[in-house]
Amino acid sequence: MEDWKVTYRLLTHCKHFFHRRSTPIFHYSIPFCTSGCRYHFNQSPELEKPYIGNYQQEFQTFKHPLVSLGMNQWNICRSQYRCFASQATIIQRRPDFSTISSEDLSYFKNLLGERGVVQDAETLDAVNTDWMRKYKGSSKLMLQPRTAEEVSQVLKYCNSRGLAVVPQGGNTGLVGGSVPAFDEVIVSMSHMNKIISFDKVSGILVCEAGCILENLIAFLDNQGFVMPLDLGAKGSCQIGGNVSTNAGGLRLLRYGSLHGSVLGLEVVLANGTVLDMLGTLRKDNTGYDLKHLFIGSEGSLGIVTKVSILTPPKLSSVNVCFLACKDYASCLKLLLEAKWKLGEILSAFEFLDHDAMDLVLKHLEGVRNPFPSSMQNFYVLIETTGSSESYDREKLDAFLLHSMENDLISDGVVAQDITQASSCWHIREGIPEALMKAGGVYKYDLSIPVEKMYDLVEEMRVRLDASAKVVAYGHLGDGNLHLNISTPQYDDNILSEIEPFVYEWTSKHKGSISAEHGLGLMKANKIHYTKSTETVQLMATIKKLLDPNGILNPYKVLPPSLFTKS
Amino acid sequence: MEDWKVTYRLLTHCKHFFHRRSTPIFHYSIPFCTSGCRYHFNQSPELEKPYIGNYQQEFQTFKHPLVSLGMNQWNICRSQYRCFASQATIIQRRPDFSTISSEDLSYFKNLLGERGVVQDAETLDAVNTDWMRKYKGSSKLMLQPRTAEEVSQVLKYCNSRGLAVVPQGGNTGLVGGSVPAFDEVIVSMSHMNKIISFDKVSGILVCEAGCILENLIAFLDNQGFVMPLDLGAKGSCQIGGNVSTNAGGLRLLRYGSLHGSVLGLEVVLANGTVLDMLGTLRKDNTGYDLKHLFIGSEGSLGIVTKVSILTPPKLSSVNVCFLACKDYASCLKLLLEAKWKLGEILSAFEFLDHDAMDLVLKHLEGVRNPFPSSMQNFYVLIETTGSSESYDREKLDAFLLHSMENDLISDGVVAQDITQASSCWHIREGIPEALMKAGGVYKYDLSIPVEKMYDLVEEMRVRLDASAKVVAYGHLGDGNLHLNISTPQYDDNILSEIEPFVYEWTSKHKGSISAEHGLGLMKANKIHYTKSTETVQLMATIKKLLDPNGILNPYKVLPPSLFTKS
Repeated sequence: MEDWKVTYRLLTHCKHFFHRRSTPIFHYSIPFCTSGCRYHFNQSPELEKPYIGNYQQEFQTFKHPLVSLGMNQWNICRSQYRCFASQATIIQRRPDFSTISSEDLSYFKNLLGERGVVQDAETLDAVNTDWMRKYKGSSKLMLQPRTAEEVSQVLKYCNSRGLAVVPQGGNTGLVGGSVPAFDEVIVSMSHMNKIISFDKVSGILVCEAGCILENLIAFLDNQGFVMPLDLGAKGSCQIGGNVSTNAGGLRLLRYGSLHGSVLGLEVVLANGTVLDMLGTLRKDNTGYDLKHLFIGSEGSLGIVTKVSILTPPKLSSVNVCFLACKDYASCLKLLLEAKWKLGEILSAFEFLDHDAMDLVLKHLEGVRNPFPSSMQNFYVLIETTGSSESYDREKLDAFLLHSMENDLISDGVVAQDITQASSCWHIREGIPEALMKAGGVYKYDLSIPVEKMYDLVEEMRVRLDASAKVVAYGHLGDGNLHLNISTPQYDDNILSEIEPFVYEWTSKHKGSISAEHGLGLMKANKIHYTKSTETVQLMATIKKLLDPNGILNPYKVLPPSLFTKS
Repeated sequence: MEDWKVTYRLLTHCKHFFHRRSTPIFHYSIPFCTSGCRYHFNQSPELEKPYIGNYQQEFQTFKHPLVSLGMNQWNICRSQYRCFASQATIIQRRPDFSTISSEDLSYFKNLLGERGVVQDAETLDAVNTDWMRKYKGSSKLMLQPRTAEEVSQVLKYCNSRGLAVVPQGGNTGLVGGSVPAFDEVIVSMSHMNKIISFDKVSGILVCEAGCILENLIAFLDNQGFVMPLDLGAKGSCQIGGNVSTNAGGLRLLRYGSLHGSVLGLEVVLANGTVLDMLGTLRKDNTGYDLKHLFIGSEGSLGIVTKVSILTPPKLSSVNVCFLACKDYASCLKLLLEAKWKLGEILSAFEFLDHDAMDLVLKHLEGVRNPFPSSMQNFYVLIETTGSSESYDREKLDAFLLHSMENDLISDGVVAQDITQASSCWHIREGIPEALMKAGGVYKYDLSIPVEKMYDLVEEMRVRLDASAKVVAYGHLGDGNLHLNISTPQYDDNILSEIEPFVYEWTSKHKGSISAEHGLGLMKANKIHYTKSTETVQLMATIKKLLDPNGILNPYKVLPPSLFTKS
């Protein structure tokens, strides 16, 4: 049994953080959850390309995963293999994929022009590397089509040539889905960024896939509407990527998932077929609703080129309160009460536990404890959004009074202005940053039935005892737990206490091992913890149907073993 | 060119109507739109089986559709063909399907017991006939499985024997999707009607597919929740059928489509595979979300056996107002204003035109004109649902005052109690009944971008001149128009003026020829008016993948010609 060293490279800042500064500085501020935080950074046009820094941190080693699986085939062809961070996630480059030839380059330059074919090392280094610098590919080519027809020609050619492809939007994913595993051709959607139409009566927006979410939000704001989707990564992420990953985010509690709000898509299949499903209708029951296959398929079934989405009207009144609860059961009762009493104006119900608050207070500058006299066990942030300031505030006050009287909350503050509201949000959103400052952190994005959710946290504390701090927070209103194990430094022994326990526990309680981040490279082999064998098999059959040569985002979403030729 | 006589049989009452009466009487009260009306009938347990009356009405003849298409193969084997109401909808029984043998019956009796195998003529006549008595099959066998495993065994057997199958829920569909075209085996879901679980914190309900919608609504009401779905047919329709047809209905404006609220499904495929996709999580991004394939596929890809659905909390305050607008443009402005000013409490925005109101006042007893001094051009019904009676009413009053001041509404009444609210709804919901009393009626369920919607109505009036009355009403908030052509009697010349014009017009304006009713037998051949060739082709490929022998609900949803063996 030999140890095998893996070097983790971790860029301890976030590109968005720099986008709002003229002089880049190093700072711990990775918004871990692109779908769950609320960092509203402005994006400078000149910084559209991801900022790639050079600050690296080397962590300790862990055992070669194949060894722990009792397998011994690692020495076959080392350069063909990649190992990614989580246990036993090892993949081999598919030998049947071609490599780029000069004829290929000529074809693409003829099709897209010189500007559409990117080969310079610096840009390629950026687009080969994921946001967290956890995954890094070695692609030698990025293509930048400007129309669906160009995407179609690119895919048709790649399909016939056996060239693997990674579709890339804003490259803000957290599971290695948006960067190459090996030398796949990167098809960037950034140049397809036009708003096509907006209907002010129906609220239906149609746009190209490369539109940056924040730009869409700003456009709609001027029209008196809002996107039903808001993410921490909105300054970079693109709507095509949001749709392809079925991004969750901060407005899901109120407006539901993209499966509900996306009305239509234009998608290019691996063989170049352009599927026009770009409906702009709220209701359409004519045949199978195929667009849903592509929502959340992480670019592995087709490339989304246009999106039609239903946007709700912008409401003027927003209230935020920050509350303390003595135990988790009270949080759940409060959630139920909020659904009943606040009903239609409830727009966020977030929670954090004592350890999360403790970390934030210790590690983040400028954060004040809203309840300075004592630490509480649990904290809840509630936001309401409605159309009438006075009525909404009265509703909120009545709800809070009732909750106090019924002992559901032990303390609470209501933000009196936007500054106080931002302070409340800053506590919730500052947790990922505080965790990074505290040392190593193992992060899990889980959906668990809310009644059981905190049991996992408590069991994990028992398992890890004093060796690590277990921190819990998340979108309680959506049943989405962000479980974080904070340690002074990374440690194999701790990892083996966490995995596969955390996945097995989640599976046993009918949870999901990926609530909103997707599977990507990180968890492609772990899908069976959440999905049945028959369902995974059918997914693989559909993948083979739509992409028989497997060129679209290979190695990801589904276990690569399902596509090994016998 | 020979004329070919077709006899329309029309049952001029509704089974629900009888469910609330001890002595059945004849009465014109067919709720045409199962997804759009609000007849809240109570269902007597002893009347669960559809009431089949004997009052028939014979309409005039029309030319044989093949003749009008210049085709002449009708005499090949008359008993093999069926002709269904709309132009050129002719199908042939697939010769490769088997017929029921005594061995088959023995197998099914052994599997399901005597009670699970129904052969008596009276029951079969009922389940062979659709709700409107427009479609009638000739099945000799209905099976009533009690578990997903039994459904699996039934389908596995039928698949191996080449026996075609029609899944049947409450049999309340309006496009011939739920009854056999020929002698298909009917698989009734009525005996799978258990509620499995309900989580009061998350609002997630899990139940079997055969649960009647009204029973689920009543169950949830006791728990303080509501179904995100409400239909006129709720006393008979089943949740499995609702999901399989992606039913729309009265709450879609507020709670969105079933693609957003259905969290999980258990589905049995044609080969007997039980697909467990019965998630109970609001967020789950692990692989392709295959359940959406089955939502709205009208039982042609698999049989839904269990459903998991997110239910919103029940809100206590409901307000209804009935308004008059001078023109359609004002209706649209009012809709926009309602979205902004009422925002989160808006739960219905329905409209009807002058001709619809005229019909209701002429033909329905007990209906009063809310504005007796004059007839108006357009009428809008707005409903709000919220958590606070006083605040919601104040919001509504402010909205109405603003709309009056801006000349968007010319008159209006606000219901002061539930009786007045019911009276307002009765006008909107009484239109189908009034239409039936007025004579023959050609009905179209269309989704059209709202700005263009009424143009079709006006163009149709010009086309038909004085020969027929064009009546328009529908779910304006959802962009769903119910276009009705009312004539003293059915007339070929009028039909040829309407079709294919109505479908071509809808297609040209990027609308849908079926907003909420589905395609079934009626419009399987018309899918190309709404969906692109490539999309329909992919639907057919997926159908062949999931049901290679084509046994599930054959002849429906997709053009049968796509499945003709060469």
